[in-house]
Amino acid sequence: MPDILRIGLAGLGTVGSSLVGLIECHGSDLAVRCGVPISVSGVSARDRNRDRGVDLGGLKWFDDPMALARDPGIDVFVELIGGANGIALDSIKAALAAGKHVVTANKALMAEHGLALARQAEDAGVSLNFEAAVAGGIPIIKTLREGLAGNTVSRVYGILNGTCNYILTRMEEDSASFAECLTAAQELGYAEADPTFDIEGHDAAHKLALLTAIAFGTTVDANSIYVEGISSITLADIEAADELGYRIKLLGVASRTESGIEQRVHPTMVPKSSAIARIDGVTNAVAVEADFVGQLVLSGPGAGGDATASSVISDIADIARGDRVGTFGRPVSKLEPYRRAGIRLHEGGYYIRLSVFDRPGAFAAIAKRMADHNISLESIVQRHRAPRLSAPGGSVPEAPQPVILITYETTEDAIREALADILRDGHIAGAPQMIRIEQLS
Amino acid sequence: MPDILRIGLAGLGTVGSSLVGLIECHGSDLAVRCGVPISVSGVSARDRNRDRGVDLGGLKWFDDPMALARDPGIDVFVELIGGANGIALDSIKAALAAGKHVVTANKALMAEHGLALARQAEDAGVSLNFEAAVAGGIPIIKTLREGLAGNTVSRVYGILNGTCNYILTRMEEDSASFAECLTAAQELGYAEADPTFDIEGHDAAHKLALLTAIAFGTTVDANSIYVEGISSITLADIEAADELGYRIKLLGVASRTESGIEQRVHPTMVPKSSAIARIDGVTNAVAVEADFVGQLVLSGPGAGGDATASSVISDIADIARGDRVGTFGRPVSKLEPYRRAGIRLHEGGYYIRLSVFDRPGAFAAIAKRMADHNISLESIVQRHRAPRLSAPGGSVPEAPQPVILITYETTEDAIREALADILRDGHIAGAPQMIRIEQLS
Repeated sequence: MPDILRIGLAGLGTVGSSLVGLIECHGSDLAVRCGVPISVSGVSARDRNRDRGVDLGGLKWFDDPMALARDPGIDVFVELIGGANGIALDSIKAALAAGKHVVTANKALMAEHGLALARQAEDAGVSLNFEAAVAGGIPIIKTLREGLAGNTVSRVYGILNGTCNYILTRMEEDSASFAECLTAAQELGYAEADPTFDIEGHDAAHKLALLTAIAFGTTVDANSIYVEGISSITLADIEAADELGYRIKLLGVASRTESGIEQRVHPTMVPKSSAIARIDGVTNAVAVEADFVGQLVLSGPGAGGDATASSVISDIADIARGDRVGTFGRPVSKLEPYRRAGIRLHEGGYYIRLSVFDRPGAFAAIAKRMADHNISLESIVQRHRAPRLSAPGGSVPEAPQPVILITYETTEDAIREALADILRDGHIAGAPQMIRIEQLS
Repeated sequence: MPDILRIGLAGLGTVGSSLVGLIECHGSDLAVRCGVPISVSGVSARDRNRDRGVDLGGLKWFDDPMALARDPGIDVFVELIGGANGIALDSIKAALAAGKHVVTANKALMAEHGLALARQAEDAGVSLNFEAAVAGGIPIIKTLREGLAGNTVSRVYGILNGTCNYILTRMEEDSASFAECLTAAQELGYAEADPTFDIEGHDAAHKLALLTAIAFGTTVDANSIYVEGISSITLADIEAADELGYRIKLLGVASRTESGIEQRVHPTMVPKSSAIARIDGVTNAVAVEADFVGQLVLSGPGAGGDATASSVISDIADIARGDRVGTFGRPVSKLEPYRRAGIRLHEGGYYIRLSVFDRPGAFAAIAKRMADHNISLESIVQRHRAPRLSAPGGSVPEAPQPVILITYETTEDAIREALADILRDGHIAGAPQMIRIEQLS
């Protein structure tokens, strides 16, 4: 154990600046807690002269993060550069090769290269920690890796993207459209100028891939995740969900099934009474269902410089105390190969919203298609319809009317085939909307 | 690091039996996770012949826990005997003296003797862990000690007693009296035959004392906690809370104030919109407010053999991996002496329910008493009153009518003095009901 733990910090954006401030602010308490002082010895960022609101005066500056990663003056390399590849990846590899511990908040990089890097860290006998990569300030990695070490997890799920949850919450509260709420989120800095990565579910998928590996003891496989974003969610869906006792959340779900482990990110109808339904705004939450503990729910800030820095420092403090938990909670060689349960095998209830032409037999044809695929309906809601107007010649226009169906448990395969048939029959306008229902407590 | 970690288990009640079952069930995964197998080497309990649903065949039996605690064949002594003193305390001391690590689920013992035992463990260079002592299966000790190591906590609060939360939830859901719901809880095994310890708040106070020490880095002082139980809560309070946008929860709250650290356990009006308001039944929840992370909420099972065993094994797994965090997160010598902020200095809003005699001037007198003590009223609710009946002689009986007052922020001192004055004035029947309001998000 060294008598000081020296940090090399690459990346001085929001999180990096917060981390410098945190260590300034809580340095002496951290030394008491960890038994060794933690100090930032070197920093690296693109622009040396930007004002970051923290004093970088006493810190050794590195123009090249690679040089910082290899510097003999550091014990821990903290990667806050971002990006799944390039300099972030190269500098982590260089740091591990030089026998440094590594802490990163980089979910994309960990989802893509986490296994290889964990193996490299193991071989070097150093730590590779990434608490801040999943759900910001929530200590979910520590909870899964250590707190639930004596459990077999059956399902882990959560609200893993604050941007999406903010937009969905606003749609509900303000009865506003997706587009309006996205703009509001952008104005508040909760969504990027190009929001695709968040709203299409890819950010949540990276986090889910990491949770899955730790929760189930499998290899990471972000490419096997079924991903659907929230941009297709309309106010009609939000209102129908409310009427039916649900809320719509972008959920990341990983669950053990007979055919393997399902991993999916999609808008989900969650019962209003469930813990996860009550998570509003940019807050994140992760629920774990496991054999001994039952259900555990953690909620907190999913982003933000200070909250994320809180997770980064927790990883550093573990290293300072000499705690060595494998990156994914088990040696890489002991992780089971991830066995995918494809989305077509998914079983659950479904919400279907159709715009049905107002003509005789239309609904009967739809009901028959569902029956053809053995899908039972739990409820049928014909939403409030506009008064029927006779056209001048006395004929009745075929104005489409919204119809909402809630199915009992069925398979994704059956639903997709039934909807394809229904679309082919031509009694509906536009494409059917389909949202999966998740049974939660 | 030994090549096997040998457990001596004292106490084979619900939790002890679950722990044996858990190690049987997950032993091989635990060995992979920790890098060393964990095995139960010896057990001790009162009755050797009781059927506990687990196989004790291969385990060495000790009639005397003291002998088990000192046995050279064990590395970790797990105390699940219970009781703040007596054999539980003696055997832990003996184990520490013999250089064994200790894991305990005993909140009463830790609240009373935790500091001295932590010092003994420190001197012996071994771990003393107690995750299971607070909030059952929720890893709140780990979260505070490790996950939030880089934070200064300003408030920690929670639903720490499942029995009370179950009773309050039932009162609300069934519109039933406290006594009826207590009986229901007893029938379901959620309350003891003598429920005093739970319903009067003492169990929650022990847990709060431990949370306070870790959250604020202070010595443990369970005797300084202001404690009020839930037996005085009536259906009228539950209904009034609902009308006013609150729910009533038995909350343990520790918060940093100018005059020291407040520790209190009492029925609390919490805003319906708060995370903690939505915790129903026997579930526990702990919320932490801290400078960098913001607000974090953990909820899960607060009791039960399996959930508690999940926490016990997590403590054992930490020891198996060689992780050494001080019992209270810091060396005992570095804990600040606990400085009490007395309840009379508490500042907050209050709910007051009075039975006011229906006579001229009664309410004016009450309002004046509040004003005398600089207490402003946020709302006044005169609940639905029975029709006034004229007595035979034409005189009007003085039937008392319920009146509910919600105050703006004031001090406990002012409220107590105002209520004493009101009682003295004689316009109310019975004693006033007073419930503190907690501002939560």
